[in-house]
Amino acid sequence: MKIDLNSDLGESYGSWRMGNDQEILKLVSSANIACGFHAGDPQGILSILRQAHASKVAIGAHVAYPDLVGFGRRNMDLSYDELYADVLYQMSALDGLARSIGATVSYVKPHGALYNTIAHNLTQAKAVVDAIKAFNPAFILVALAGSDLVQFAREQGLHVVSEAFADRAYNSDGSLVSRRLEGAVLHDANQIAKRVVSMVEDGGVMSIDGTFTTIKADSICVHGDTQGALEITQKIIDALSESHIGVTAFSAKEEG
Amino acid sequence: MKIDLNSDLGESYGSWRMGNDQEILKLVSSANIACGFHAGDPQGILSILRQAHASKVAIGAHVAYPDLVGFGRRNMDLSYDELYADVLYQMSALDGLARSIGATVSYVKPHGALYNTIAHNLTQAKAVVDAIKAFNPAFILVALAGSDLVQFAREQGLHVVSEAFADRAYNSDGSLVSRRLEGAVLHDANQIAKRVVSMVEDGGVMSIDGTFTTIKADSICVHGDTQGALEITQKIIDALSESHIGVTAFSAKEEG
Amino acid sequence: MKIDLNSDLGESYGSWRMGNDQEILKLVSSANIACGFHAGDPQGILSILRQAHASKVAIGAHVAYPDLVGFGRRNMDLSYDELYADVLYQMSALDGLARSIGATVSYVKPHGALYNTIAHNLTQAKAVVDAIKAFNPAFILVALAGSDLVQFAREQGLHVVSEAFADRAYNSDGSLVSRRLEGAVLHDANQIAKRVVSMVEDGGVMSIDGTFTTIKADSICVHGDTQGALEITQKIIDALSESHIGVTAFSAKEEG
Amino acid sequence: MKIDLNSDLGESYGSWRMGNDQEILKLVSSANIACGFHAGDPQGILSILRQAHASKVAIGAHVAYPDLVGFGRRNMDLSYDELYADVLYQMSALDGLARSIGATVSYVKPHGALYNTIAHNLTQAKAVVDAIKAFNPAFILVALAGSDLVQFAREQGLHVVSEAFADRAYNSDGSLVSRRLEGAVLHDANQIAKRVVSMVEDGGVMSIDGTFTTIKADSICVHGDTQGALEITQKIIDALSESHIGVTAFSAKEEG
Repeated sequence: MKIDLNSDLGESYGSWRMGNDQEILKLVSSANIACGFHAGDPQGILSILRQAHASKVAIGAHVAYPDLVGFGRRNMDLSYDELYADVLYQMSALDGLARSIGATVSYVKPHGALYNTIAHNLTQAKAVVDAIKAFNPAFILVALAGSDLVQFAREQGLHVVSEAFADRAYNSDGSLVSRRLEGAVLHDANQIAKRVVSMVEDGGVMSIDGTFTTIKADSICVHGDTQGALEITQKIIDALSESHIGVTAFSAKEEG
Repeated sequence: MKIDLNSDLGESYGSWRMGNDQEILKLVSSANIACGFHAGDPQGILSILRQAHASKVAIGAHVAYPDLVGFGRRNMDLSYDELYADVLYQMSALDGLARSIGATVSYVKPHGALYNTIAHNLTQAKAVVDAIKAFNPAFILVALAGSDLVQFAREQGLHVVSEAFADRAYNSDGSLVSRRLEGAVLHDANQIAKRVVSMVEDGGVMSIDGTFTTIKADSICVHGDTQGALEITQKIIDALSESHIGVTAFSAKEEG
Repeated sequence: MKIDLNSDLGESYGSWRMGNDQEILKLVSSANIACGFHAGDPQGILSILRQAHASKVAIGAHVAYPDLVGFGRRNMDLSYDELYADVLYQMSALDGLARSIGATVSYVKPHGALYNTIAHNLTQAKAVVDAIKAFNPAFILVALAGSDLVQFAREQGLHVVSEAFADRAYNSDGSLVSRRLEGAVLHDANQIAKRVVSMVEDGGVMSIDGTFTTIKADSICVHGDTQGALEITQKIIDALSESHIGVTAFSAKEEG
Repeated sequence: MKIDLNSDLGESYGSWRMGNDQEILKLVSSANIACGFHAGDPQGILSILRQAHASKVAIGAHVAYPDLVGFGRRNMDLSYDELYADVLYQMSALDGLARSIGATVSYVKPHGALYNTIAHNLTQAKAVVDAIKAFNPAFILVALAGSDLVQFAREQGLHVVSEAFADRAYNSDGSLVSRRLEGAVLHDANQIAKRVVSMVEDGGVMSIDGTFTTIKADSICVHGDTQGALEITQKIIDALSESHIGVTAFSAKEEG
């Protein structure tokens, strides 16, 4: 058995640092790299691409709304044409930078508000899906497990992998508990690690209601932006190892 | 005999329009397309790429300093690493957008202050040259005729075409008369058209001193942003036609 | 009888021109001046402030979402704190530039998507209202006639003037006909001019349903960005003049 | 005897943190607050203004070139008109935000490349000086001790305070040793603290050549962006205290 661990990288900007890219690269199998719209300047993106390439992790385009000051976390009412072109531009920029160093971009993971919006807003989802198909139909889309997007993007002919969150509570219907509610984010490293193993071995976790809910996850999102986050990620890897579950990047062949 | 005519396109931004892209596309053989740093948003760039592709003109990346409000016309003291990555990012973005519609980017023409600076500043020039080589060594660099850059970039292994300006006066040493001096910019359409023919047929023009100066030009830069500019460009084409000089895009094979 | 005519000015940006600021300044009594977030760079804002001051029109801060490429026309899900600070920053910048030339900012008119959103979204409305109160409680807020914002902002202690649109159709409940529906925007200059007179003299206009609807307007928004728009505005002024209705800026004393 | 200690604050941007603003505010007498062009978003600027106001330090506008990704550290060839308006806009924005919470901006300290450039480039210096005079002639300009700017700005009628750097080596002519040369930046806290006391008591320090050089400083620039920087600043304060030198903000009356 095996699972992919992905994390957001390259989110520094100019003189501002964010995250522990070098540390997290030792732990994950897939790197979602910022493309310049919510974070990442060309020089910084090129630097993290070199590190990711040397680490032999899979490289994904972490595309976002054009909102640097809001870090791509605020919903923006973009038209289909605007979003299509914005996503195409970001994939193109990252892909070209990657090719210049002999690296390969293989997937797309939308960031922040865009990620959440296209989980259910199919107009914006179609813009993202169509941009990926126009740029490189072999690219894999990372989508929220259980969301409308997973089914929709597959119907549109894309390769899709479903993503679960290691440190988030789930409702009994498989949706994420809103961050506004108590208990939405888990902090206990051992509990988080056990849940990740449960997702892989049992295909789900206990929901916040105490019932088992199915989470079909091909990839688990982990964090490395704080010392605590790095420790949780290490604990997840240790628990996976003890359960003889390998950490490897997803590939088009492996998706369901 | 033949010559290339190039012009700057895609320099609108968001709700702001600039230039008469549709009109100028009917006249030129090469389109320098903005990449988003001095002008051009993704949706607008994609639109002009579609028009340029339909018009069968050569497409070039019009890379610039990251200065939207200054339209890339102000010198910026970028480091080698910053400029290298900025140029790579812009070429990548344009190239990916072009490929998504089946079009091909074949050359790079730096814009504004960057164009002028790398004509003589070889640190910045090397950043641009190296970025082109890393991205696609088959790309042609359009450089100011007679500048240090022409020789330097060729020594570095790049294909280079030399560019002259239809509406600018030249000094007797082949350099451009500074815009700050009287007579630097020509306005008479017939005179401009004759000078372009002279550049192609005679390999040079009368300098501002009244002596003939050699201008080795593979491409002539023309404008289409005003009604007057369009008329001058039309007059140039008519004069070239009368002298049986074809207007066709340069290619790597044709450069000196 | 008298009425205020307001128009959006200073919406150029860097090398990009928008509107006929000099022409429209001869016609209106109030100038909504961009503050740099959806349009307007410092040099351009200062220039239009000088012209507005010389023209003796009232000057308002045309505050917007931070979305240059989208021209402030796309909804953005800003938090109260983000919007409060963004509005405060924009008012401050415009006010300081105005004071440096001896001019005075006297009102605020939110722009584009922000204008439409705060007509009914009272969380965002409160952020705008509170920012105005914190900066200068004597500032007048220009709000959509008949919207929730008019009542809300007055309850919060602000001076409010209600604004109607010369070239827009109204529903029988006094709301604007959505731009997505046919007939939403009027183009006949004579008809538009008559409706403006009707708004002032009769306190309303024929709705799209053919019934008279009350529109309590202290100010009418007009446009000058095209030749046609300038002509319509001139026609409105002529019609007002024939009906002995003066065009003068609103002031705190005059609001209802 | 007394001296002012100033430091750069409010240099976070959006989701990116920079510096230890709360810690450094306990130590300095003057806070140079970013205005949004090289760093600082409206919400963050408002937050640091509240903290600075509560700490009763003097508040200055830390104006910069419009270069977020370059952090204002790259020279930009702005025209007089561009720079004049850019500086006016930034002072206005900060001043308005400050007034909204009852705080007062009392000085201007240009940042980064702008600071270094106007020390000797009098065209750009005049733009800054004129903008300050137009906005508030009572504002004090903080300028590099010994630079042409000190004399020039005084001749233009501005209040000027001269600034020295605690951790930088000086040449025997009173100029800063270039950062490119070895020994340009000092790291030993005790040595740095002693030099600051020497600047106040003796009016100068040992130059890198081993000769005493006069540094007429009204204010000393200190840093708080790292734990080490905070410790050095604390050491400076302790050394000043032992020498019975008070740390208080400069004011117009006190300047030479």
